[in-house]
Amino acid sequence: MALTSAIKGVIPIAPTPFHPDGRVDETSLDRMADFFLGAEVDGVTILGQLGEAPKLDHAEAVAIARRVIGRLTIPVLVGVSAPGFAAMRALAREVMELGAAGVMIGPPNTLRTDDQIVAYYRNAAEAIGPDVPFVIQDYPLTFSVVMTPSVIRRIVTETPSCVMLKHEDWPGLDKITALRAFEQDGSMRHIAILTGNGGLFLDFEMERGADGANTGYAFPEMLVDVVRLSAAGQRDAAHDLFDAHLPYLRYEQQQGPLGLAVRKYVFQRRGIFASDAQRKPAASLSAQAKGEVDYLLSRIARVDPRARMAT
Amino acid sequence: MALTSAIKGVIPIAPTPFHPDGRVDETSLDRMADFFLGAEVDGVTILGQLGEAPKLDHAEAVAIARRVIGRLTIPVLVGVSAPGFAAMRALAREVMELGAAGVMIGPPNTLRTDDQIVAYYRNAAEAIGPDVPFVIQDYPLTFSVVMTPSVIRRIVTETPSCVMLKHEDWPGLDKITALRAFEQDGSMRHIAILTGNGGLFLDFEMERGADGANTGYAFPEMLVDVVRLSAAGQRDAAHDLFDAHLPYLRYEQQQGPLGLAVRKYVFQRRGIFASDAQRKPAASLSAQAKGEVDYLLSRIARVDPRARMAT
Amino acid sequence: MALTSAIKGVIPIAPTPFHPDGRVDETSLDRMADFFLGAEVDGVTILGQLGEAPKLDHAEAVAIARRVIGRLTIPVLVGVSAPGFAAMRALAREVMELGAAGVMIGPPNTLRTDDQIVAYYRNAAEAIGPDVPFVIQDYPLTFSVVMTPSVIRRIVTETPSCVMLKHEDWPGLDKITALRAFEQDGSMRHIAILTGNGGLFLDFEMERGADGANTGYAFPEMLVDVVRLSAAGQRDAAHDLFDAHLPYLRYEQQQGPLGLAVRKYVFQRRGIFASDAQRKPAASLSAQAKGEVDYLLSRIARVDPRARMAT
Amino acid sequence: MALTSAIKGVIPIAPTPFHPDGRVDETSLDRMADFFLGAEVDGVTILGQLGEAPKLDHAEAVAIARRVIGRLTIPVLVGVSAPGFAAMRALAREVMELGAAGVMIGPPNTLRTDDQIVAYYRNAAEAIGPDVPFVIQDYPLTFSVVMTPSVIRRIVTETPSCVMLKHEDWPGLDKITALRAFEQDGSMRHIAILTGNGGLFLDFEMERGADGANTGYAFPEMLVDVVRLSAAGQRDAAHDLFDAHLPYLRYEQQQGPLGLAVRKYVFQRRGIFASDAQRKPAASLSAQAKGEVDYLLSRIARVDPRARMAT
Repeated sequence: MALTSAIKGVIPIAPTPFHPDGRVDETSLDRMADFFLGAEVDGVTILGQLGEAPKLDHAEAVAIARRVIGRLTIPVLVGVSAPGFAAMRALAREVMELGAAGVMIGPPNTLRTDDQIVAYYRNAAEAIGPDVPFVIQDYPLTFSVVMTPSVIRRIVTETPSCVMLKHEDWPGLDKITALRAFEQDGSMRHIAILTGNGGLFLDFEMERGADGANTGYAFPEMLVDVVRLSAAGQRDAAHDLFDAHLPYLRYEQQQGPLGLAVRKYVFQRRGIFASDAQRKPAASLSAQAKGEVDYLLSRIARVDPRARMAT
Repeated sequence: MALTSAIKGVIPIAPTPFHPDGRVDETSLDRMADFFLGAEVDGVTILGQLGEAPKLDHAEAVAIARRVIGRLTIPVLVGVSAPGFAAMRALAREVMELGAAGVMIGPPNTLRTDDQIVAYYRNAAEAIGPDVPFVIQDYPLTFSVVMTPSVIRRIVTETPSCVMLKHEDWPGLDKITALRAFEQDGSMRHIAILTGNGGLFLDFEMERGADGANTGYAFPEMLVDVVRLSAAGQRDAAHDLFDAHLPYLRYEQQQGPLGLAVRKYVFQRRGIFASDAQRKPAASLSAQAKGEVDYLLSRIARVDPRARMAT
Repeated sequence: MALTSAIKGVIPIAPTPFHPDGRVDETSLDRMADFFLGAEVDGVTILGQLGEAPKLDHAEAVAIARRVIGRLTIPVLVGVSAPGFAAMRALAREVMELGAAGVMIGPPNTLRTDDQIVAYYRNAAEAIGPDVPFVIQDYPLTFSVVMTPSVIRRIVTETPSCVMLKHEDWPGLDKITALRAFEQDGSMRHIAILTGNGGLFLDFEMERGADGANTGYAFPEMLVDVVRLSAAGQRDAAHDLFDAHLPYLRYEQQQGPLGLAVRKYVFQRRGIFASDAQRKPAASLSAQAKGEVDYLLSRIARVDPRARMAT
Repeated sequence: MALTSAIKGVIPIAPTPFHPDGRVDETSLDRMADFFLGAEVDGVTILGQLGEAPKLDHAEAVAIARRVIGRLTIPVLVGVSAPGFAAMRALAREVMELGAAGVMIGPPNTLRTDDQIVAYYRNAAEAIGPDVPFVIQDYPLTFSVVMTPSVIRRIVTETPSCVMLKHEDWPGLDKITALRAFEQDGSMRHIAILTGNGGLFLDFEMERGADGANTGYAFPEMLVDVVRLSAAGQRDAAHDLFDAHLPYLRYEQQQGPLGLAVRKYVFQRRGIFASDAQRKPAASLSAQAKGEVDYLLSRIARVDPRARMAT
């Protein structure tokens, strides 16, 4: 079940549930896995930034991967970004052994030049081994690393084990168009492009040629529907559903620990997580912020009953 | 007509119209001034980042200020951010002479510590003179300078000529709440807080205690309505109108020259600007992007007829 | 043998020896430990930036710590900087168990405001436990985090387990003076200040009140002598020796992998390391660069015979 | 007297003298011009970072250029870095009109990708006009913009009016070697390479192929001698003189306003400047720092009598 460039659809980025005292909450982890299956997603990515991966130690990370991979029957991608290649390799090899479909690698925020970026991915691919399919995470807002379409093409061309781009540049629509044009003019082989950035531009990203979404959002069902509607050419219907969610989606998409706090709060309200706790450095929602979220959910619920919460 | 901390309402950030050959388009400038008056805004800010101020030389900047101030009967704020205090002072004194109501100052992106930020505003206030009211522009996404509420309080306390905050931190709602709490506990005098960031959170910013909007958006009439509805306590109506615009607003709010290209394109479609030209470094919209904008406008127009474009 | 704020003298930052194929070279590691003992240093810091710590996985890091601590009879400090507190805690607890004297913690390069920096060290101290003495690493050139003297005072005051500052700000002399003034006016308890930055300002740092050096330099014997001469008030003699080394020291002090390549090359020439290999991302010296280093060493050797190399 | 790629020798970067009240000190400016002539330098660069150019308004900048160009009989280069191309063009055209030999352009610190850097210089060259010879300033430590040798080659190839590189990367020796190799393999036309960075590596930069120095240092006579000795193949003599200055040179080369304060203090002690005042944001030397500088000068004076100060 290795990841290939043919992957399509929705692969949510999973948050990691913690108990209020900071321990990983395995029951909630199982519930989340089951929830994703029920939402008919096409895979799951764990241990990304959103999953608070840098706050876990190695043993915890492996334990989470083992549990989720063991429970799911769909591809599991694992974030293996690390300060160095030895730690990246160690985690990548272990999770592939456990049955992961592939790994995701984001660049360290010290890279600057085109050559540095390309060399980084060449070294990373060599470190994890050529048999491990990997996803480039292109997220300048968080990583401060700017990859032009040409740089992505160089990485794709140099490293056969690169099969997918997690696209979350902003603005980013023209980047999708440019990459698809490279494929059409024969200068780059096909890779999957799934988009992130909280889904903020998913409606148009699909129209520009994306293959789906690879992002955290508290209602992955909506992402699934929008991707399906868009693939089916039902433009207005896709936008209608997307727009109904957008006021809340925008609120959830706030950067850093606050956006994650929103997402965990809603996962808690939906009965998926037992707690909305984060590990430090953490953010928590004020009563006022929770009220704002509840208000936004109630407004979605007028159109999409899945956003109706028990009160 | 000097700016005071009592200012409320909507103060659009004005883009600067250029001819395709790069000259300032004075006719469009006049038309924009008239348009803003018709939209019943409470002031106008010129020569901000969005107004491509860094791309103008000193003489051009002064000429634009003279023209707009001369044409308008509402307060005009002028961006005077500059690499050094001498150039800042020169521009500030000239535009105040011409009748500006106050100036806006953003921090250079080299500031790091709290003390550096406070010292910067102390020096800036001294440079422009204590008689010139100024606005702090707090825009970490663009300036890479992070001001805590306490730092803003220190600036407000140290420099009496600081009368307003252009708030565009993201996430930023809790910052408004924190600053208003400082006022309530008596630890900071009142300043006006008008919010930026393309209006992306205006709906909730008003509920948190903002006094209005100080941002670019191609439909300032919507900002005016939302601010009024919110001030009148008509929460649902405010959100209904805001949400109808949000899919397009999000598109316009993309960072950098691309977002500006969207805004100028719509100003052109609305008959305000003769051209959507930018000075270099510039972005321009592809045919596909224009189609996306047109589609979004047509969707707003189902609810808000002001978004209906001639075809 | 827990580290206290009374520590003085020279604590070299140790590079990590690798075989050309990337494995840790344990024989060279032992030889380096013995060499440091022979140089009469007052402790050793392992697993710092210079020690390529981010390129090691957890098991390798622990193995190196075990070996060095086991071999040395002087305090061993261990770098435990990590992307998150769980990994930091895991490493800190293990190496303290093995007999480390304390740990060193550098800030992540995403911190910006004073409050963020103070909170980071509060959380880190809590994570590793109040019984683990720690060193603040203040190295803006590498970490992009700027700590004012007041911020350091806040950390020292809030966290009793902070016992030392590894000072490597640049320019940095006035920071030492400011911190010692805090101690004299009673606003901060005493901490040890040992200086880094390759030793580039050690001569004057001692005169400003530093307690010694905590840096990598291929001739720690020189650091020991300069610290002793300076402590003994022999100013001219301290500068004479320092200045004889400075042309080479400056060459070694180049940032990043290149400076490390110089240091490893000289360790190899001195018979301490079997190889000058680095793990990726790595730099290696050209023949021309090696010639420059050899020339510089030959010039030191006119004054300090310890720099005479076998040919 | 237009600058060409044949330029060689020493072109000091001039500081700007101010009166203690902040006005430009024209008498000191004249004295500095005369001093440079007496030092037998090959040109002078004014209005660079070190010259506090960003702290001057346009009229002041032009007045300084007029005065210095009018007084000197050697080529004068003028820094025209600006936030936008209109201001850059305005200053460049005016100073060329006044008789400048060429201009120097540093990149804005927002550039990231290779393409952005190349496009920036293409646009800048177009803005100032193809008849204006320009110098690339490559100073990553200050500008946070990293140019690979390939990027510099692209700029040189695309823009015929680029005639010189002010090289101040750090580490930077291999960059000089790489660029000279491009010339030798025919892939890049010849440009002059003069080095900056306070002269910290001038000894070896000359040996790597640099054409001279383009930097601020309080004793340009030393730079002139080292360049001449090195060009004449007198390696040991070049290093002997350089090394005698290095302990002080290192002190002066500290980044930012402090390093400038050192330089201005010594210019004052040498009778060139009436005051060591800087415009804000400024640094000033403590009595202790002045004592350190005096001590360092007295040590140079044992070898180089030009460093002997009146007491």
